[in-house]
Amino acid sequence: MTVDLDPDFAPIATAIRDHVGRQGFMALIGAELSELARGSCTLAVDRRPELLQQHGFFHGGVTAFLIDNATTIAAAASHGQSALTAEYKLNLLSPAVGNRLICRAKVIKPGHQVPVVAADVFCVIDGNEKHTATALASIAMRNERIAAMAASPA
Amino acid sequence: MTVDLDPDFAPIATAIRDHVGRQGFMALIGAELSELARGSCTLAVDRRPELLQQHGFFHGGVTAFLIDNATTIAAAASHGQSALTAEYKLNLLSPAVGNRLICRAKVIKPGHQVPVVAADVFCVIDGNEKHTATALASIAMRNERIAAMAASPA
Amino acid sequence: MTVDLDPDFAPIATAIRDHVGRQGFMALIGAELSELARGSCTLAVDRRPELLQQHGFFHGGVTAFLIDNATTIAAAASHGQSALTAEYKLNLLSPAVGNRLICRAKVIKPGHQVPVVAADVFCVIDGNEKHTATALASIAMRNERIAAMAASPA
Amino acid sequence: MTVDLDPDFAPIATAIRDHVGRQGFMALIGAELSELARGSCTLAVDRRPELLQQHGFFHGGVTAFLIDNATTIAAAASHGQSALTAEYKLNLLSPAVGNRLICRAKVIKPGHQVPVVAADVFCVIDGNEKHTATALASIAMRNERIAAMAASPA
Repeated sequence: MTVDLDPDFAPIATAIRDHVGRQGFMALIGAELSELARGSCTLAVDRRPELLQQHGFFHGGVTAFLIDNATTIAAAASHGQSALTAEYKLNLLSPAVGNRLICRAKVIKPGHQVPVVAADVFCVIDGNEKHTATALASIAMRNERIAAMAASPA
Repeated sequence: MTVDLDPDFAPIATAIRDHVGRQGFMALIGAELSELARGSCTLAVDRRPELLQQHGFFHGGVTAFLIDNATTIAAAASHGQSALTAEYKLNLLSPAVGNRLICRAKVIKPGHQVPVVAADVFCVIDGNEKHTATALASIAMRNERIAAMAASPA
Repeated sequence: MTVDLDPDFAPIATAIRDHVGRQGFMALIGAELSELARGSCTLAVDRRPELLQQHGFFHGGVTAFLIDNATTIAAAASHGQSALTAEYKLNLLSPAVGNRLICRAKVIKPGHQVPVVAADVFCVIDGNEKHTATALASIAMRNERIAAMAASPA
Repeated sequence: MTVDLDPDFAPIATAIRDHVGRQGFMALIGAELSELARGSCTLAVDRRPELLQQHGFFHGGVTAFLIDNATTIAAAASHGQSALTAEYKLNLLSPAVGNRLICRAKVIKPGHQVPVVAADVFCVIDGNEKHTATALASIAMRNERIAAMAASPA
C-alpha cells in the first residue's frame, strides 16, 4: 500500500514536467529532471562531446544551464506558482570532469514573491560525486498557477 | 593600407579563436565569436527552436553560456594568459525575445590574478537591441601563455 | 525662476530622507545622502580612523554598507514604494584609499516587484575619483507607499 | 591536560587576531572574533541602537560587514596567508531581529589563489538562532605570510 502524503503536489509535478518537456534547450542539452518535490529538484546530464570545452571538461555553460533551470523549477514546485529566474551567482569549485553532472536545487527561503534557492552541482567520477559548483539564486514568482497553465492548450 | 596598431595581439587572437573553436558546446549552441580585442569580446547566436524555453524566449541557460564564455575570453585576451571562470552573477532584465542574442564582455579591472569582467546581453528585435541581462564575473588567471598552448599539438 | 519638472517626487524625497535619517547605522557611519532623484541616489562618507581596516584603507564593510543602502534607496525613489534589499553582489576593484567614498546607485531595470540596481563606488584622492567597487542588486518592493509611512508617527 | 592538535596554527591565530584588532571599523561596530580555526571563523555583535535601520532591525550593512570580514578571515586562517576580499554575493533571508548577530564563515574550496568561502548569518531571538542571510565569497590570496606581517612593527 502506498500512502501519498501530498496529493496536492501530483498535478503540480505533472504540470512542471510538461513545461520542462517543452523546453527546446533542455532537449538539446539532453538533461533530465530526475527528481521533483515541493521546493526541490534534481537535474542531471550525461557526458557527450558536444557538452565539453576545449580541455574535455563539461563546459561551464552546461553547469550554468543546470543551475538556471533547477533553481527556477524548485521555486515553481514550492507552491505550484509560475516562476522566472531573476538572478543567480555561481562559483565554479573544480573542473567538471567525469561522466555525469548532477544539479540539486533546494528552496532555502520560501516565499510567494522572491524565494531564494541554493543549488550545488556534482560531477560523477567512477560512481563518486565531486562538488564542482555552488550557486545562490533569487526567483521572481508570478501570480499564476502552474497547473492551470499546463491545462490550457499551448 | 592597414595599420596594425597591436601586432602582439594577432597571435593571441589566433590562439584564442583556436581554443574556442575546439569547444564542443560552442558548436552545439551555434554561437560565434564575432569580435575579439584586448580585454573585450562579443559572442552572438541566432534564434533556433532548440535554444528556447517553453514560452518561445531564448532559454536563460543560453544567456548564461554566453556570459560564461565571453567573460573568460575577454580576460584571456587581456594579456594572452590562460583563464578559468571563477564565478559570476547575472541578473535577467527582460525576456530574451527576438532573432539574435549578443553578449559583449569587457574587462573592468585588469590583472594577472583575478581580473573582473562585466558583460551585457542584448536581444535583437527588428534590428533594435534590447538589454536582456547584465553580469559581473571574476576570472582566475593561470601562469600559462595562451599562444604557446595553442601552438602545441592538442 | 525654478521649474520643478517632477512635483510628485518632492514628497517621496522628503519621506525617504526622513526614513534614512532614522537609521542609527547611517549616523554611526556618518554617511550623507548627497543626491536623490527618481531611480538614483548618491551616498558619501568622509574618511575617519574608525572606518578603516588595518592597512589604513576604508574597510570593505563601509563600501558594502554604502551599496546596501544606496541601491535600496534608489529603488524606493523610483515610484515611492517601500523597498527591502533582497540580494547583491559586489566586486572590490582596488583599495579604497583617499579622503572620501562616494557610492552612486541607479535603477537599471525598473519594476514594481524586483527592480535591479547597479552601484559603483569611487574613492576620492586629491580631488580625483578612482573606481573602487562595483555592484548589482535586486530589491524586493513592497505594496506600501513610502510617503504615507513617513507621515505616520514613527 | 590539553592536547593541541595543530601547533602550527597558534601563531597564525595570534597574527590574525592582531590584524583584526587593528581594524578601526571592527571596533566601531563592536564585533568580536568569537571563534577562529583553520578555514573557518565566527564573528558576532550585540544589538545597539546605532547598528539598526529605521524599523529597528540590524542594518543590512552590519550583516554585510560581518560577511566581508568573516569570509576573508576564514580564508587567511586556512594557510596563514594574507588575504583580500575579491567579491561576494549575499541574500538577505529574513529581517535581522533579536539581540545578537552571528556570522559563521567556512572555506568550501581551499586554495592558494582564489579560495571560495560560504557564510551564514543568524540572529539570536530568545536564545534561538534564525537564519537571516547567506553568502558566497571569493578571496584573493597574497604571497605573504600573515604571521610574518604581524611580527613586523606596524
